Amino acid sequence: MKKIAIFVSGRGSNMVSIIKAQKNGLFSAKIDVVISDNKDAEALKKATRMGIETKYIYPGDKKGTISKSASNLILDTVLKRDISLIALAGFMRIIKRSFIKTFKRPILNIHPSLLPSFPGLDAQRQALDYGVKITGCTVHFVDEYMDHGPIILQASVPVFNNDTLESLKQRILKMEHKIYPEAIRLVLENKYRIEGRKVVVEDT
Amino acid sequence: MKKIAIFVSGRGSNMVSIIKAQKNGLFSAKIDVVISDNKDAEALKKATRMGIETKYIYPGDKKGTISKSASNLILDTVLKRDISLIALAGFMRIIKRSFIKTFKRPILNIHPSLLPSFPGLDAQRQALDYGVKITGCTVHFVDEYMDHGPIILQASVPVFNNDTLESLKQRILKMEHKIYPEAIRLVLENKYRIEGRKVVVEDT
Repeated sequence: MKKIAIFVSGRGSNMVSIIKAQKNGLFSAKIDVVISDNKDAEALKKATRMGIETKYIYPGDKKGTISKSASNLILDTVLKRDISLIALAGFMRIIKRSFIKTFKRPILNIHPSLLPSFPGLDAQRQALDYGVKITGCTVHFVDEYMDHGPIILQASVPVFNNDTLESLKQRILKMEHKIYPEAIRLVLENKYRIEGRKVVVEDT
Repeated sequence: MKKIAIFVSGRGSNMVSIIKAQKNGLFSAKIDVVISDNKDAEALKKATRMGIETKYIYPGDKKGTISKSASNLILDTVLKRDISLIALAGFMRIIKRSFIKTFKRPILNIHPSLLPSFPGLDAQRQALDYGVKITGCTVHFVDEYMDHGPIILQASVPVFNNDTLESLKQRILKMEHKIYPEAIRLVLENKYRIEGRKVVVEDT
C-alpha cells in the first residue's frame, strides 16, 4: 500500500479533508505521518485524534524556509518510511530544491487562488484587493519555484460585493477540500501524464 | 440618449454582440460609430451591414500604439459626437494616457483571460501553455496600463485535455459575448461604484 505524508503548519483543515477522504475510501493509501514545522500546530492534535502518527521537526530560525539540517532530517524521514506522495497542506515553508530532486516522487501543494494569479501569501486578500469577480484554488505539483509547478486541478468560486476576507476564505476552502483529495487520488492512481508544464488528466 | 463608440481592428465578433444586444433592447443607447485602425477590418463591413456608421483612422506606422495626431483625431471625433462610453472590441492598440484623461468617460475593454492572469497578446495560448484548468474572460475599465483597470465582470470556462487553441478561443468567446454587453449595460445605467480598484456592481 502506498504511503502519504502530509506537511502542516497551522489548523490543518486540508489535512483533515485528506484523512477523511482516505477513511472514506476515495483512494487506497495509508496516511503514514503528519509532519509539522510548528509544534503548536492545531493540525498535530487533530491528526493524533484521527489516529495518525505525527512528527514535529524544528525548521531552523529563518521564517519561510527550512534549515539544511531540518530539510535533511525530513528527507531522511520520508525516504525511510518509503513515502509515495507528500501533500503540503498549509505548510508555510519553501521546500528546498535539493529535497525535491532527491525525493523524486510527487509533492503536491494547494494554493487559494487560480494560479498564476495571486501567488504567495494572503492570496485571498490579494484577490479581494485586486477586485477580481472570480477566484478559486489550485492543486499543483511542487517545483523549485513558489506556487508555480504543473497544475493538476483548479476550482473557481465567485467573489461577492459583500465578501469579507473570512467569507471568501471559507468559500474557497470548501472547494479546496473537494479538489485536494481528488488530486491526490489522480496522482496516486497515475491517472495523468505531464506534457511540458501541462498535466493531462486521464481518469477513465 | 447616450451614445456608444466601438473601436475595432479585426473580425468584430464582440462588436456584433454589442450591436445585437442594443437592438434587442438590453440597454438604451445608440451605437453611434465604429472606429477602426485597420481599413480592411471585417468588422467595418459588418457594422455597415448592421446600419452603423464607420470611420477608419490611420493610426500611424508603429504597431500596437496610436500616433499623437491619430489619437487627437479620434479624441476629437468622440468628443464632437458626445460619446458616453467607448467599448474596445479587439482594438489592437494601446489607448494613450492623455486620451483617457481628456475623454474622462468610461472606456471598457474585454480580455480573453481571467485577469490578472495572462495579460497581453495571445491570452488563450498563454493559458494553454501554462496548463491552467480554468480560464475565462474579463471586462474592465481601461486605465493607463495594459489589461489592468478595475474589473467589471468576469466569466470562467474550463480547459479540456483535448482543447486546441481554436476550441478554447471559441469557448471563451461565447462568454465574452455574454458579459461584454451586460457590462456595458451596467456602466451605462450607472449600476456601479468604484472603491479603490474594486468595481462594486449594484444591479437591483
